[in-house]
Amino acid sequence: MLQRPFISLLSDFGSRDPSAGIMRAVVLGIAPQANVVDLSHDVAKFQVRDGALLLWCAAPYLPVGSHVAVVDPGVGTERRPIAVRVHRGDVLIGPDNGLLLPAAERLGGVVDARLLASTAHRLPVVSSSFHGRDIFAPAAAHLATGVPFGALGPELPLDDLVRLPWPAPEVGGGELAATILYVDTFGNLKLGAEPSHLRAALGDQPWGTSLRLTWTGSVTGVSAPWSETFGRVAGGPPLLYEDSYGRLCLAVNQGDAARLLDLHEDDRITIRVEASGS
Amino acid sequence: MLQRPFISLLSDFGSRDPSAGIMRAVVLGIAPQANVVDLSHDVAKFQVRDGALLLWCAAPYLPVGSHVAVVDPGVGTERRPIAVRVHRGDVLIGPDNGLLLPAAERLGGVVDARLLASTAHRLPVVSSSFHGRDIFAPAAAHLATGVPFGALGPELPLDDLVRLPWPAPEVGGGELAATILYVDTFGNLKLGAEPSHLRAALGDQPWGTSLRLTWTGSVTGVSAPWSETFGRVAGGPPLLYEDSYGRLCLAVNQGDAARLLDLHEDDRITIRVEASGS
Amino acid sequence: MLQRPFISLLSDFGSRDPSAGIMRAVVLGIAPQANVVDLSHDVAKFQVRDGALLLWCAAPYLPVGSHVAVVDPGVGTERRPIAVRVHRGDVLIGPDNGLLLPAAERLGGVVDARLLASTAHRLPVVSSSFHGRDIFAPAAAHLATGVPFGALGPELPLDDLVRLPWPAPEVGGGELAATILYVDTFGNLKLGAEPSHLRAALGDQPWGTSLRLTWTGSVTGVSAPWSETFGRVAGGPPLLYEDSYGRLCLAVNQGDAARLLDLHEDDRITIRVEASGS
Repeated sequence: MLQRPFISLLSDFGSRDPSAGIMRAVVLGIAPQANVVDLSHDVAKFQVRDGALLLWCAAPYLPVGSHVAVVDPGVGTERRPIAVRVHRGDVLIGPDNGLLLPAAERLGGVVDARLLASTAHRLPVVSSSFHGRDIFAPAAAHLATGVPFGALGPELPLDDLVRLPWPAPEVGGGELAATILYVDTFGNLKLGAEPSHLRAALGDQPWGTSLRLTWTGSVTGVSAPWSETFGRVAGGPPLLYEDSYGRLCLAVNQGDAARLLDLHEDDRITIRVEASGS
Repeated sequence: MLQRPFISLLSDFGSRDPSAGIMRAVVLGIAPQANVVDLSHDVAKFQVRDGALLLWCAAPYLPVGSHVAVVDPGVGTERRPIAVRVHRGDVLIGPDNGLLLPAAERLGGVVDARLLASTAHRLPVVSSSFHGRDIFAPAAAHLATGVPFGALGPELPLDDLVRLPWPAPEVGGGELAATILYVDTFGNLKLGAEPSHLRAALGDQPWGTSLRLTWTGSVTGVSAPWSETFGRVAGGPPLLYEDSYGRLCLAVNQGDAARLLDLHEDDRITIRVEASGS
Repeated sequence: MLQRPFISLLSDFGSRDPSAGIMRAVVLGIAPQANVVDLSHDVAKFQVRDGALLLWCAAPYLPVGSHVAVVDPGVGTERRPIAVRVHRGDVLIGPDNGLLLPAAERLGGVVDARLLASTAHRLPVVSSSFHGRDIFAPAAAHLATGVPFGALGPELPLDDLVRLPWPAPEVGGGELAATILYVDTFGNLKLGAEPSHLRAALGDQPWGTSLRLTWTGSVTGVSAPWSETFGRVAGGPPLLYEDSYGRLCLAVNQGDAARLLDLHEDDRITIRVEASGS
């Protein structure tokens, strides 16, 4: 059995520029045995929370390895390049701007954090604007060749790591309020709340219960059944379901819910059980 | 010589969401020795025929292996998850909605079909909306590790598999009628007909023969030479040629034929030899 | 230690069509041990200079190997399929249209050039429109399996290779004139000039020096500091800096300079030190 260390890459570099490909090449130049997987390089530009969410989604499905994430509006400033080791054994590598921490939590939490200060584990020349190539990808590759985590640089206090603000769900008064965290490429609206929050707010509701969803600017909002799955009717009414990552999601079967409902990231949705007769 | 089992992936998941990357990661978590190749994850959403066509195009160029395809508007309904073994030795894996069968035919036809029912060859938790991750990618990966095809689940009668409607060419009255099956990213219009159909309709015509193409809504249609290759004139007149997959294709050299002629998928084109003097 | 020969791919095939995936599959069918890296398949269609520039950017970061590039408006005409061996040891493979030579220069210059004439190192059938699949990818893969470079075909005189016109910077009269060679996906404007040209034109200027940039059609142009890095102000004024490839670049921190300034590829920019009091 060969060792094939696993390295994943995520960024907002896009697919037209060669930046993502260069990161892959840098990794394989140092660690030719690695399995390198691109999670996405089309994270919305500079949207650190989007990147954090996508990494959070992917994390449990990734083999234990090193995961590089670069959504990095602060590159070239004093923001720190870091690596964090998590309880499951993975190492997450990227800027200290909150991007890595939701996924780190999902993998058991950070057990050790390092400043990527070791010049031996960077490229010889470090630019001011492409740390993915010069610092982050080389660090992941060196780990894959067996370099110990501690060699990457000095320890950082865990309390010091930058955390992202994250819109929390609110439960009360027979309502759940939750924020749209992400609109996926199908137009499905991913909410910052889980089925447990829905149960806490509305009690245990059977599949098919009619829910009323409202938001600022909506006149009457929209009615959506609480659904086990998409159902069979293409382009039918919106439905609320648990997506494949365990979050509440508002969707239209084979339709683009975001466009149809004119809803966007960061819009706040209130959900209650539809009054009968309404 | 090492064994590097080959696995290809195709979907309509897009490049921004991490879904495609997660499928790659799931495969490599189970089968770290696999060579995983993405054919495309930008198939037009829910367009099963587009996906089927792209897989048909790619199939003869793929090493023998397992090929996962997911364009799956019926996910979460009773549509069946299947694997089909073809005469060449490959296994095609995806939803039973017709997506796999054109490629399967091109690889010698289906010799065995299975329902993906084995819980040992899925992820432990199967969601209602992401079978690419939970069922299809794991099945391909387990095959790559040596699991026998028959272990994936019970046999399905071949006549039972869902087939796609496919627009056929019509030959008669000195004309060939064919449907635009696909518009590629260059704007080339891929017709559902082959040079043999053109010969059957128009007889054996030399390169350069002027053809008249008409369609519903066109006034006079357009004249296009029957061409061996693109030729040297950028942005010249449209031309009809045999594309690199053996199909008839209407193109403009270094131009976007779809936009210039305002033609779209599913438009029906009639082709005849241009009357001299017209 | 296993041998993992390195092969990179670059094209304008886009991500929706399966063309890029088919090239990967063809490579791995011939050379299953290869590490195959996509640099980009979203080069602007037919823009040979864009492709040449991206390959030039990536080249120093690629492991020594075979690099296939296909931006090929002349496919199907008499333009030649070639491979060039460079001083560093890499082989660059693609059409003889100038695409390969800037990267080849950056890797030490061409030491041997071949016409890809060997039918043993192509696919059995060569189409008129997809040489990436039929000629270029197979050549790279055969090299990766140990085929000697000279077996690919007869030697070509180096002076015969097609070279691209390349807009040169002009230094004089206290000004630097340079052309926008590329607009990256962040909207950063990559100029065809390096910091050494700026020094030659303006003398040695400290960070923060206010520069005036003008172009045809601009009224007063724009003021931009000569900057070591992006700085901390999102959406601040434009700034001129050395990008991570060693070129001058005009950018707006966390903004899209191309859109904000309405500048495009091939626009010519004149740069001088801002007159004090202006």
